[in-house]
Amino acid sequence: MDTLVGLCKRRGFIFQSSDLYGGYQGFFDYGPLGVELKNNIKQAWWKDFVHRRDDIVGLDSSIITHPKIWEASGHVGGFSDPMVDCKESKLRYRADQLFFAPVSLNGEAAGFVAFIEGTEAGDIVKRAKKLRDLKGDKQAVIDEAALLEAPTEFTEVTEEQRVLTLGPDAAALGTLTEPRDFNLMFETKVGPLAESSAKAYLRPETAQGIFVNFNNIVDTGRVKVPFGIAQIGKAFRNEITPRNFIFRSREFEQMEIEYFIAPDADWRTLHREWLDACIDWLVSIGIPREMVTEDVHPTDKLAFYSQATTDLMFHFPHGEQELWGIACRSDYDLGQHQKFSGKSTEYFDEARKQAKQEPFKYVPHVIEPSLGVDRTFLAVLTAAHCVDQAPNDKGVMEERTLLKFHPRIAPYKAAIFPLVKNKPELVEVARKLYEKLQRRWNVFWDVTGAIGKRYRRQDEIGTPFCITVDFETIEKDGTVTLRDRDTMAQIRVTENELIAYLEEKIDG
Amino acid sequence: MDTLVGLCKRRGFIFQSSDLYGGYQGFFDYGPLGVELKNNIKQAWWKDFVHRRDDIVGLDSSIITHPKIWEASGHVGGFSDPMVDCKESKLRYRADQLFFAPVSLNGEAAGFVAFIEGTEAGDIVKRAKKLRDLKGDKQAVIDEAALLEAPTEFTEVTEEQRVLTLGPDAAALGTLTEPRDFNLMFETKVGPLAESSAKAYLRPETAQGIFVNFNNIVDTGRVKVPFGIAQIGKAFRNEITPRNFIFRSREFEQMEIEYFIAPDADWRTLHREWLDACIDWLVSIGIPREMVTEDVHPTDKLAFYSQATTDLMFHFPHGEQELWGIACRSDYDLGQHQKFSGKSTEYFDEARKQAKQEPFKYVPHVIEPSLGVDRTFLAVLTAAHCVDQAPNDKGVMEERTLLKFHPRIAPYKAAIFPLVKNKPELVEVARKLYEKLQRRWNVFWDVTGAIGKRYRRQDEIGTPFCITVDFETIEKDGTVTLRDRDTMAQIRVTENELIAYLEEKIDG
Repeated sequence: MDTLVGLCKRRGFIFQSSDLYGGYQGFFDYGPLGVELKNNIKQAWWKDFVHRRDDIVGLDSSIITHPKIWEASGHVGGFSDPMVDCKESKLRYRADQLFFAPVSLNGEAAGFVAFIEGTEAGDIVKRAKKLRDLKGDKQAVIDEAALLEAPTEFTEVTEEQRVLTLGPDAAALGTLTEPRDFNLMFETKVGPLAESSAKAYLRPETAQGIFVNFNNIVDTGRVKVPFGIAQIGKAFRNEITPRNFIFRSREFEQMEIEYFIAPDADWRTLHREWLDACIDWLVSIGIPREMVTEDVHPTDKLAFYSQATTDLMFHFPHGEQELWGIACRSDYDLGQHQKFSGKSTEYFDEARKQAKQEPFKYVPHVIEPSLGVDRTFLAVLTAAHCVDQAPNDKGVMEERTLLKFHPRIAPYKAAIFPLVKNKPELVEVARKLYEKLQRRWNVFWDVTGAIGKRYRRQDEIGTPFCITVDFETIEKDGTVTLRDRDTMAQIRVTENELIAYLEEKIDG
Repeated sequence: MDTLVGLCKRRGFIFQSSDLYGGYQGFFDYGPLGVELKNNIKQAWWKDFVHRRDDIVGLDSSIITHPKIWEASGHVGGFSDPMVDCKESKLRYRADQLFFAPVSLNGEAAGFVAFIEGTEAGDIVKRAKKLRDLKGDKQAVIDEAALLEAPTEFTEVTEEQRVLTLGPDAAALGTLTEPRDFNLMFETKVGPLAESSAKAYLRPETAQGIFVNFNNIVDTGRVKVPFGIAQIGKAFRNEITPRNFIFRSREFEQMEIEYFIAPDADWRTLHREWLDACIDWLVSIGIPREMVTEDVHPTDKLAFYSQATTDLMFHFPHGEQELWGIACRSDYDLGQHQKFSGKSTEYFDEARKQAKQEPFKYVPHVIEPSLGVDRTFLAVLTAAHCVDQAPNDKGVMEERTLLKFHPRIAPYKAAIFPLVKNKPELVEVARKLYEKLQRRWNVFWDVTGAIGKRYRRQDEIGTPFCITVDFETIEKDGTVTLRDRDTMAQIRVTENELIAYLEEKIDG
């Protein structure tokens, strides 16, 4: 992971947000290359799932919405982690990462020390000594075996134990609160009203924006169940411990689809079809099939309304983790919004009425494929990153770092090099070719340094094709050299052949 | 404007956010057609200003950033409107929209009534009567002339007057506060800490994300002054009175460039070049040149650090309003971030050093072209909307509503119709053509209804080309009918001619 984070910063893919001010945890900025890669991922997804399908339309709903939407969705009540506050230090801890253990002095129970998961034994003992000092008996013997043996999760603490506990950053006993729910939604206030009724939330997912627009889209579009609504957009979660680079951040982007089906549709088959479509798409942007596995959620772990959820897992640098969740959520969300808004979210199925197939009117069920843009970015980067051996300008083999991005999503599709920069006709021919390609794709212009060096630069930022205009181009037949990033093979092609080749590789 | 708002809702361009819950003021959702138009506007801008220029790179920075950035930028201190709170009703008023007037009873000064701009005389008198009742003298004569003569802006109220004033929604005197600054930034809290140190803001503009990444991009890219950094992204302002549809909303999207130049560069010429580039771009997406005018800010109205600002104004349905601001902002922002972060934002100019042209090290100045995506959307919609006369299926002239979108930004580039739906070979040929075009563009498939009706549907959503596969296609030469939205002219073309034509019109 460190290699990837370093490369991302060095080559302008991703910077820590607010770097100039010492950074801001859980937030990231996408630099010149990162924004291109990210846009290409989003556009490839949109093209394949919205433009190339007749049964899915797009949506772009607002980040801040009516707060009642989050009551209906269950996020106001339930979207939370239990937290423990320290009244003395004002620090806050995740209850499931906080532990406590008994301190026994001269064989007598004297209280408890609390510490964060992963605290070393020596540091736990130090805290126990601190508690001993508080008790005023600096000579008392601490029962270290009992202390270190079986720490208990702080979620299990009793009221009596809690008031006798020394917090991880406290100087007095009993400063920790009982575990309390901490909602992961970012709150804000909307409008000029000073009242609390102005409270609103930044959406923690894009999906609800789709559900609340279901009626609008049915009424104004020409969609017929089964159909889907797709949305790409930012979402926000006030994660207690954002971690693993862009894998779990506080501001992120989602690509979600709600695919509406009849209540009696064969959801098992449709769910499998969606899983396959999602896997195919990952492969189409260059993720090797073998890096993706399926994690089927056991039935007893599903929410009561859900028939099935399968996560597509990817082998990230920090382990096998969820990339794409594909869930069957029944009619739960549309049903909740019907209940909370007081308006019907039923669909009238004209085709079923014609076929006399009851029910004609129903609240559709959904299949929800939900993917994170940033996680896809990290997966693409992980899959593309490799090091091989390549000859340098003197023919000596050297290590070569490259990003094997699929041409569809590579930040630059091609780089155009005039072989030398002091031959105006040659530069001019190269420049014309550059401008021609630029009308259609994002391409790079580079005139400086030896060709070998220029190749390496492009390899490291993942440009799949390098095109060199040389003396043969201007003196002979107009052909140019086309060099492949992965094989390093070079062929000579005419301009027409070049364009046909790029077209097939990039847009094909 | 009402016509446009109606069309937007009816055809799925734009819905009020949280419609299902009665709507949410100042927020909008872009429906299936709206999201396509919006994406096309953003992509055209990115292509022309980032991909097709060698001197501009892209960025996508986070919406929530280190709060110190907004102190440096001046938004924490200054980005505010004076507001007046009513301690009784908890309502809040914009001070510059609140007025007060003297109430005189039986010729004696008895206090003041406050009312919102535009309140009718009758209602002001009613409030004066309310004040009279409070005073306990229901028979006292109100001096109506004095009351209605010259209302004073509430920003001018004195402490003595204020405590004797009856607020617009109050039942007692003296419930209004003095005008106090109300910051337009949305606030939130980041991280698990319960303290106020966790306060953060949703960015009110994308520009500052560019300035704080200046060092990162200079260090990791191969950019050389003069160069620009471009960004598209959401921004948020808690407008007191959002209005004029998507023109002034609380959540909006910006397309901003900071173009960095040397301190001694000829900013006058560069500013003019930027104005021209911006106008050219508007024309390239179909906005008529004559609908755009320039508003030069007078020198004495400029901020102390700014040399010039010119707004490109557009004739919106609600009047001539700012569309694109092009400002020369000197080195103010980079200088502020240098001051607040304690880190240098100086640029080392290698080329000037080589040429021995002092200074070699400097904080660059900027030219900032700042454009709103939503305003551009509204401008495009305004310019495209028109009504003309066209013959219906029976040859009778009828009113025709159309959106003359430029093919570059039209939601659908073309619609493909099989002339009849009950002739399988014909449908199959049409479907193949549809799938071929779909690989490259967003195209529409329609098999239902008379051809004339299908044309009208596409006219109303702005599809520039309709392609009909008819009996001649399958029985004769394979040519199809290509119908132009604006002229309604039809020509027969081969598939190759069709693709070349679309290529030129859409991507040309």
